[in-house]
Amino acid sequence: MKPLMSKIDLENFLEKEFPQVSNNFKILNTKPNSLSMLMHISDEHLRPGGTVSGPTMFLLADVSFYLATLSIIGPKSLTVTTNCSINFLRKPNISNLISESRVLKIGKTLSVGDVLIYSEGIKEPVAHASLTYSIPRE
Amino acid sequence: MKPLMSKIDLENFLEKEFPQVSNNFKILNTKPNSLSMLMHISDEHLRPGGTVSGPTMFLLADVSFYLATLSIIGPKSLTVTTNCSINFLRKPNISNLISESRVLKIGKTLSVGDVLIYSEGIKEPVAHASLTYSIPRE
Amino acid sequence: MKPLMSKIDLENFLEKEFPQVSNNFKILNTKPNSLSMLMHISDEHLRPGGTVSGPTMFLLADVSFYLATLSIIGPKSLTVTTNCSINFLRKPNISNLISESRVLKIGKTLSVGDVLIYSEGIKEPVAHASLTYSIPRE
Amino acid sequence: MKPLMSKIDLENFLEKEFPQVSNNFKILNTKPNSLSMLMHISDEHLRPGGTVSGPTMFLLADVSFYLATLSIIGPKSLTVTTNCSINFLRKPNISNLISESRVLKIGKTLSVGDVLIYSEGIKEPVAHASLTYSIPRE
Repeated sequence: MKPLMSKIDLENFLEKEFPQVSNNFKILNTKPNSLSMLMHISDEHLRPGGTVSGPTMFLLADVSFYLATLSIIGPKSLTVTTNCSINFLRKPNISNLISESRVLKIGKTLSVGDVLIYSEGIKEPVAHASLTYSIPRE
Repeated sequence: MKPLMSKIDLENFLEKEFPQVSNNFKILNTKPNSLSMLMHISDEHLRPGGTVSGPTMFLLADVSFYLATLSIIGPKSLTVTTNCSINFLRKPNISNLISESRVLKIGKTLSVGDVLIYSEGIKEPVAHASLTYSIPRE
Repeated sequence: MKPLMSKIDLENFLEKEFPQVSNNFKILNTKPNSLSMLMHISDEHLRPGGTVSGPTMFLLADVSFYLATLSIIGPKSLTVTTNCSINFLRKPNISNLISESRVLKIGKTLSVGDVLIYSEGIKEPVAHASLTYSIPRE
Repeated sequence: MKPLMSKIDLENFLEKEFPQVSNNFKILNTKPNSLSMLMHISDEHLRPGGTVSGPTMFLLADVSFYLATLSIIGPKSLTVTTNCSINFLRKPNISNLISESRVLKIGKTLSVGDVLIYSEGIKEPVAHASLTYSIPRE
């Protein structure tokens, strides 16, 4: 599983394919089978009670694992999420989120792995997601 | 499991607690242990390829099951999602989404159930989510 | 999605492919996209505290959705589970289990749906599982 | 999260509470928030096609995370699984299974984490499960 896309390749892909949200995300580093991202949190991501919303954490998990998968298989933009199971563990601070993705399997048709989500200022993870992506046939 | 909140109670609650998004949602009907909602889809909910994004469907599932739970237990706004497992089944149209929630269990500390999500113009469901909410102790 | 295997076809398949456990299971009825089964509970399925074990309920969900899928696509025995998310809702009685499977999607490579599990003598479901099966290419 | 039960405490607990299956399991090591186990595979755990069955891997994940939780909170035997989402990644060999559990959160009422399952002779994991246990109030 040698990476086909570098950090710069992924940044360019994100900017081109998701121009409306790419400013919210920053790739921190990529390694074989893992990728770390930062998500800038602003008012639109909050929910009452002074915390980051669940769908915002879901979005970060989804984007992170998508890029972690593409880094291995290349820019197949039709790769789509088929399943995500997410556990919310702790209330995040009102601060940026950081993800750590891990690819556990890349098969011919499926990519499977998980993502830990951290909130700046909290040591323990605030959420943990397991994801499956369907990879289109050539 | 007799409902403690009516359709109008839930609408008022949504407007008061989630003013920034309540305009996007409309409760269609409530029955004991089930609730149906409509979500208005606009540009912000789309992703490249001409489809509604996964996080948008997650958001609708989350809000729907939250209100289905509150309709039974009353306006405990600290009730929070602990787990959501969502399967994406089909590509939605660029049109409104409709949810059908089903509460399978209300215990002292957990509410568990599932949500089918439909896209206007498609007969079969486009997503299916199973959710667990944690209910705060008095 | 017209069924390719009848109730009798499925019973013969189960007996031939899973001879060591087929006696534990009985298909109650099959309809397009749904199937109901009974599982005979004996000592080996119990856990301390006088209840049916979680892995036993998982087994019933797995077998039920497998047969519900095969009833639609035919006897492709290499069809395998890729994901199962199961919620345990209530403590079952020490009595037989009954499953109700629902197929939500049959695609070219994936079958997705859910299973409600009941315990004889309890009106409400004791478990709810969502499953994805991978269908082998010809 | 200082462990309340040592490896020997857990072995004694397993033998006393689950005498019918404890011989199949061996705790390999325990650390704060993690635990590794071996499961002896025999004929009863196999399924047609020469592989270890899904419910067997589910059982190992369930037992492993149960003991990982009890090692932290002590011998509360009424601690029960509420959710498990398991992804099957690769076909296991017909050989013993090894689990690596990781506790991501211990709260007052819930324990949440995940388990990687390995098959002897295969470097990559064969399954990955995320689990939630409900912890009884005193």
